[in-house]
Amino acid sequence: MELFHISWKLTIVNGSQLSQLVMLRCEALGKISEEPPRLTRTFASPAMKRANKLVASWMREAGLSVREDAAFNLLGRLPSSQRDAKTFLLGSHLDTVRDAGKYDGPLGVLTAIAAVQLLRARGTKLPFHLEIVGFSDEEGVRYQTAYLGSNAFAGTLKPGDLARIREKQILNARRREKFLGYAEVHIEQGPVLEAKNLSVGIVTAIAGQSRVRVEFLGVAGHAGTVPMELRHDALTGAAELVLAAERCGVTATVGKIEVAPGASNVIPGKAALTLDIRHQNDSRRLTAIKSLRATAQKIAKRRGLKLLWVPVQENGAVPCDKQLTQIFSRCVTARGLHALKLPSGAGHDGVVLSQVCPVAMLFVRCKGGISHNPAESVKAADVRVAIEVLADFLIHVATLYERG
Amino acid sequence: MELFHISWKLTIVNGSQLSQLVMLRCEALGKISEEPPRLTRTFASPAMKRANKLVASWMREAGLSVREDAAFNLLGRLPSSQRDAKTFLLGSHLDTVRDAGKYDGPLGVLTAIAAVQLLRARGTKLPFHLEIVGFSDEEGVRYQTAYLGSNAFAGTLKPGDLARIREKQILNARRREKFLGYAEVHIEQGPVLEAKNLSVGIVTAIAGQSRVRVEFLGVAGHAGTVPMELRHDALTGAAELVLAAERCGVTATVGKIEVAPGASNVIPGKAALTLDIRHQNDSRRLTAIKSLRATAQKIAKRRGLKLLWVPVQENGAVPCDKQLTQIFSRCVTARGLHALKLPSGAGHDGVVLSQVCPVAMLFVRCKGGISHNPAESVKAADVRVAIEVLADFLIHVATLYERG
Repeated sequence: MELFHISWKLTIVNGSQLSQLVMLRCEALGKISEEPPRLTRTFASPAMKRANKLVASWMREAGLSVREDAAFNLLGRLPSSQRDAKTFLLGSHLDTVRDAGKYDGPLGVLTAIAAVQLLRARGTKLPFHLEIVGFSDEEGVRYQTAYLGSNAFAGTLKPGDLARIREKQILNARRREKFLGYAEVHIEQGPVLEAKNLSVGIVTAIAGQSRVRVEFLGVAGHAGTVPMELRHDALTGAAELVLAAERCGVTATVGKIEVAPGASNVIPGKAALTLDIRHQNDSRRLTAIKSLRATAQKIAKRRGLKLLWVPVQENGAVPCDKQLTQIFSRCVTARGLHALKLPSGAGHDGVVLSQVCPVAMLFVRCKGGISHNPAESVKAADVRVAIEVLADFLIHVATLYERG
Repeated sequence: MELFHISWKLTIVNGSQLSQLVMLRCEALGKISEEPPRLTRTFASPAMKRANKLVASWMREAGLSVREDAAFNLLGRLPSSQRDAKTFLLGSHLDTVRDAGKYDGPLGVLTAIAAVQLLRARGTKLPFHLEIVGFSDEEGVRYQTAYLGSNAFAGTLKPGDLARIREKQILNARRREKFLGYAEVHIEQGPVLEAKNLSVGIVTAIAGQSRVRVEFLGVAGHAGTVPMELRHDALTGAAELVLAAERCGVTATVGKIEVAPGASNVIPGKAALTLDIRHQNDSRRLTAIKSLRATAQKIAKRRGLKLLWVPVQENGAVPCDKQLTQIFSRCVTARGLHALKLPSGAGHDGVVLSQVCPVAMLFVRCKGGISHNPAESVKAADVRVAIEVLADFLIHVATLYERG
């Protein structure tokens, strides 16, 4: 528990030291779990309350005034001297998946705090209020929902979600003001930045997603006695669809496949699979889905199989704000780095915030693209870039804001 | 239990009546189970002993002298007047799989008894001893073996099988004499005869079988964040192999496939599948296996996957005896029917008997090709053809035997 008391106070002035601090804070926060030694921290759990307390202490140390809202979101505010100014939001989430890594979520909150420390060390004053939010539920582990924290904050809670949870008071977390924008730093959770040897990347959009449950129904039979030409093998049909999905031109995954009866000497009579299709361009995603469905129908017809095609989920893409994204690009380029733009295949709190203000995201390279896993890993040097870029970003936004 | 006492004695003289009798006897025998109402009758079980008793009574009624050997095989003997004659064997098995149908096994024993009744009604005397065997273990359910009954009879028990069982005395069932031949009637357990609208078919060979466990190992990852071109998806590799197996020119089945981690939003890091390859021609089977292995290696290389290829089982094909098969063909043709020759994709007691004498098999059409299932179904009209063909067959064999 020694780590919890780490603080360099005002002696810290540069990005390198701040990135070390963020790394140590990620470690410390990674130990606050409801099922140690695994890191699991779900919505409204005692572990989350302890984590909020710790992050609150770091926020205060950075000069922020702190409160927890009715949805357990942690809010650290740096008010501008201009009382009637708008508020710009930074943040990410402090909840985790089960057996999580240390960076998915917390890194965004802690780099935001570090960016504020950097600005303060430089003596920079912002013309807008700045608020750093540690959202309480992005992963949705507790109630099999998603974005409870940011939805409560944005006032976009769905009745279905609300019906499912015990903490009905989270409705009171709603903020009705018009925010200037929301920027989030997050680990990439993918291998692109690593493959391109880049510390950070700028998110163009959070991809839309379709999920479909597909079943092929054929005729089970003896693997030795039914000649090939008399078969209606559900798995061979499914295998064709798996390969068609791979070639369909958008991000497509069959992550689950199950056959029945499922014995080595029995021809599969049923094959059920999941289809996950994502793209930052909704029309390309929907075209791909349509074409895959037609392919599945052709496969089924040719093979004498029955096809079940059950859409399970359908989320449109969320484009990041062009102007804010442009600012991130300029800040990255200004540091002599290549400003790679990439879509986010995973969802983020920005999906929710985009309903109430412009959003932008900066991705940080993570080792092997691994996430939702204790092996999640980021480099301090990359975190430093993120902190510095985020501080520069705020200054650019300030300039624009002052220009009106 | 009324059915157990069915008997028409000597009033029955034609194939039609005998086929009705066989159908009723299959019903009666189908009720003798160790887990009623499901039909399950495993090696050396009390149910098997009750079944043997019932079949023994039918054998005696047909004029056979009956005994049970040390391996629980039921033996019904019709001695020839020529004492030093050889013995011709008819038979099949009386054990079943779990939740079995009524015909797989028993039909062969009961048609053999009916054929003897038909011959006796015609006053035919055979120049060789005839023995009808109800083998006690073909399915191998009790000890996860196969052919315990016929192996004990033929003296071909494997030390591994013997080590595994409690009934060590079955070694004493060994018969050292040189048999004239073995003929078995069995349901097809496949859809070929039904598709060709034929009552019976003549088996050319019992197919050889290779079983392989195949694993593709790739890299698991997030279905949204790993771009298609950076993936090492184990399932797409496996899907290619599934389709290659289907096109490989022999009977090939992937009956089982499992992916890990197995979540809709995770790229499969591992795909494990079973490969079952059968053919009546061993070299064609082995060529197909070799070619599929090469294909799997190419798939793995191209996709950056690791390949595990584990041969699990390897059984050579057992050709049926040309002369006996020819006789079956003539008998079928003589009744104005098409003598279709087909391989058996499933194993039978003939596999074992072929080590000690020439074997031949006659398949009877079964509904939908369904077997190892309570829905197993045969038609009395087809059973009648089988009884009459089997009786004719014995007369032909007798003629040949007398010719020397």
